[in-house]
Amino acid sequence: MKIDSVDFHYLAMPEIRDIGDGSQDALLVRVQAGGNEGWGECEASPLVTMAAWNCPMSHSACKPVSDSVLNQPLNDPKDIPRIHQLVREQSLDLLQTDHLLSGIDIALWDLLGRKLETPVYQLLGYERAFPKLPYASQLFGDTPEQTFEKAQAVRTNQYRAAKFGWGPYGRGSVKEDCDHVQAAREGLGDDGILLVDAGTVWQDDVETASHRLEALQRCRVEWLEEPFISAALGAYHQLSLKSNSVKLAAGEGCHQAHHAFNMMEYAGLGYIQIDTGRVGGITSAYQVAQRAAQKQIAYVNHTFTSYLALSASLQPYAGLESHHICEYPVEASTLARKLTQTSMIPDKDGMITVPEAPGLGLAIDPETIARYQQEVQIKVNNRIVCESTRR
Amino acid sequence: MKIDSVDFHYLAMPEIRDIGDGSQDALLVRVQAGGNEGWGECEASPLVTMAAWNCPMSHSACKPVSDSVLNQPLNDPKDIPRIHQLVREQSLDLLQTDHLLSGIDIALWDLLGRKLETPVYQLLGYERAFPKLPYASQLFGDTPEQTFEKAQAVRTNQYRAAKFGWGPYGRGSVKEDCDHVQAAREGLGDDGILLVDAGTVWQDDVETASHRLEALQRCRVEWLEEPFISAALGAYHQLSLKSNSVKLAAGEGCHQAHHAFNMMEYAGLGYIQIDTGRVGGITSAYQVAQRAAQKQIAYVNHTFTSYLALSASLQPYAGLESHHICEYPVEASTLARKLTQTSMIPDKDGMITVPEAPGLGLAIDPETIARYQQEVQIKVNNRIVCESTRR
Repeated sequence: MKIDSVDFHYLAMPEIRDIGDGSQDALLVRVQAGGNEGWGECEASPLVTMAAWNCPMSHSACKPVSDSVLNQPLNDPKDIPRIHQLVREQSLDLLQTDHLLSGIDIALWDLLGRKLETPVYQLLGYERAFPKLPYASQLFGDTPEQTFEKAQAVRTNQYRAAKFGWGPYGRGSVKEDCDHVQAAREGLGDDGILLVDAGTVWQDDVETASHRLEALQRCRVEWLEEPFISAALGAYHQLSLKSNSVKLAAGEGCHQAHHAFNMMEYAGLGYIQIDTGRVGGITSAYQVAQRAAQKQIAYVNHTFTSYLALSASLQPYAGLESHHICEYPVEASTLARKLTQTSMIPDKDGMITVPEAPGLGLAIDPETIARYQQEVQIKVNNRIVCESTRR
Repeated sequence: MKIDSVDFHYLAMPEIRDIGDGSQDALLVRVQAGGNEGWGECEASPLVTMAAWNCPMSHSACKPVSDSVLNQPLNDPKDIPRIHQLVREQSLDLLQTDHLLSGIDIALWDLLGRKLETPVYQLLGYERAFPKLPYASQLFGDTPEQTFEKAQAVRTNQYRAAKFGWGPYGRGSVKEDCDHVQAAREGLGDDGILLVDAGTVWQDDVETASHRLEALQRCRVEWLEEPFISAALGAYHQLSLKSNSVKLAAGEGCHQAHHAFNMMEYAGLGYIQIDTGRVGGITSAYQVAQRAAQKQIAYVNHTFTSYLALSASLQPYAGLESHHICEYPVEASTLARKLTQTSMIPDKDGMITVPEAPGLGLAIDPETIARYQQEVQIKVNNRIVCESTRR
């Protein structure tokens, strides 16, 4: 079969709040080929990403992504890395490409899995999918008291691990940050796995970040996530030399597998965190997972949105038994929670496993699309280059 | 003063050819503040970059770039890095941001230089601007004979250095690549500085790239540029261990200063090449130039388009006397050549120096804008979020 069409659904909640919650909107990608369809989700600015699909060519290495996708043969798992590579080459200088490619690549794997009646993890070569221990991923409260309550709720809901991130953390004093971490530990109890996400707040400032280490160590935090921007390899390395029991985790900003390879090589990480919806889809995420396994760095998904994104994030390392933690969104928007007709919820042992079903194993809910769809129209010289309308 | 407005001009040649010539279109940015204006150019896909200016917010770290620019105070050179940093933080997850920020940052420096009646290089702290030796930058011919003729023309036109890139190089056999390089050396003569640009053709394949080293060494090529994509730090490092007299040059794909820092730290480069229109503008390029000077790696601009882009690329290292080579486009499109009312051409000694005039020292030609302007309209839910129309 050949790729017949790619279309986009830009979904958004009625109100987008100025908080670190990436589930407030979504860019869904549907690929159709030979009567089959597959779905993917970009973790990206929907409008800008849509513009990259069919923008006018600038030169031979800055082409619209559609040039490398439409009409391509798609019959075998090997076709996807081939198409993927073609996109990267022909749209090398179009920066937004990697975020768009992510959604398309995910949809291609979903489509091929449905067609071949095989879960994606098996197309990738894994024999079985191991259950992962989900950590409840959420924002810090505005006050330590709120953080304490959130952590208590996590324990009540039977999660054995929790992550708190963004919000006030790193924006106030060392004491205030310490109070939040301590409140999280107290709420979670002594035995829960506690993770902290600084959301790149210190950019590349090792000194400021290192003042937080003492409290993190004392509260037995397993990892400090994203103290710095992804590219600040030297800053990560320096902090890793001081962090002792607290491991460093990072990688969600990587938009190519090579960025993650570099972080694993030079940044002193204990955990590499990959968002399949940003790194270039399942093809790139799988490459990172394989490299992580070789280097004995723990691979973890980065997922803060829908079950579709969660399934796509877990497939690349589903078969790696010793990489056993997964991010699990517990504060996602209604839009994100209702994007699919079925959910992925913890089993009786509190574990999450990818669906044992073709492709990504989830069906999109058309009612959710209809409810949250945004209308987009992009015109160049009166020609419509990209459009998405309510049905 | 405060930043009152930012507007865009998407210019394009009537026909865009499928060749590695980035001068076939342009995205011009004009910033206005307190009755002054400044101009910058993004080296980017114009449509996609415009979409990033005023797209709907997705979350607190994925805001439209306009949120961090409009109404910001602009009085002092220190205001620009402050605005720059705000953009990076508030649009962290909007990938295209860095290319858009580049044009805005350049326009801010131009505006402030005009207002303060000072060349940008002086605002950056350099006392004087040193002349640079321009290398004639062009594409390989389709055949070795064409490459030979192009190289001869370079010598006839009194250039002492030339670079050939893209086109067939790296896409045929080792023998064919060798023939092109040898033709370039013969056409240029024994004493010219010869540079070769592989345009990332080998991605991260060290083995394939290393088969080209013998011919490059024999033809006394000063640098091999971009054998690999920018993020393939390990591949660069491995090739650098084998390249002997041929130095490695790379960096044009860097869209943050940190990417260039990483290349300088880990990739074994002899030259770091920065496109001010991609790396985040003059602010980021200057940071890279300072780091390059510390590390004794030669800084070179990457410029294949207009004199406006050339001036913006030279300012960040204008005061670094020992970093004395510069890229000089000799095959730019009419659009690029006529974008400004004045040109930057080699002096009687064959050298290029930034204009001794306020800001970037060049005036935009309104006739060129009128002639090549493309009409763009981007609407979300029937609200126009970005527009550019012919006057």
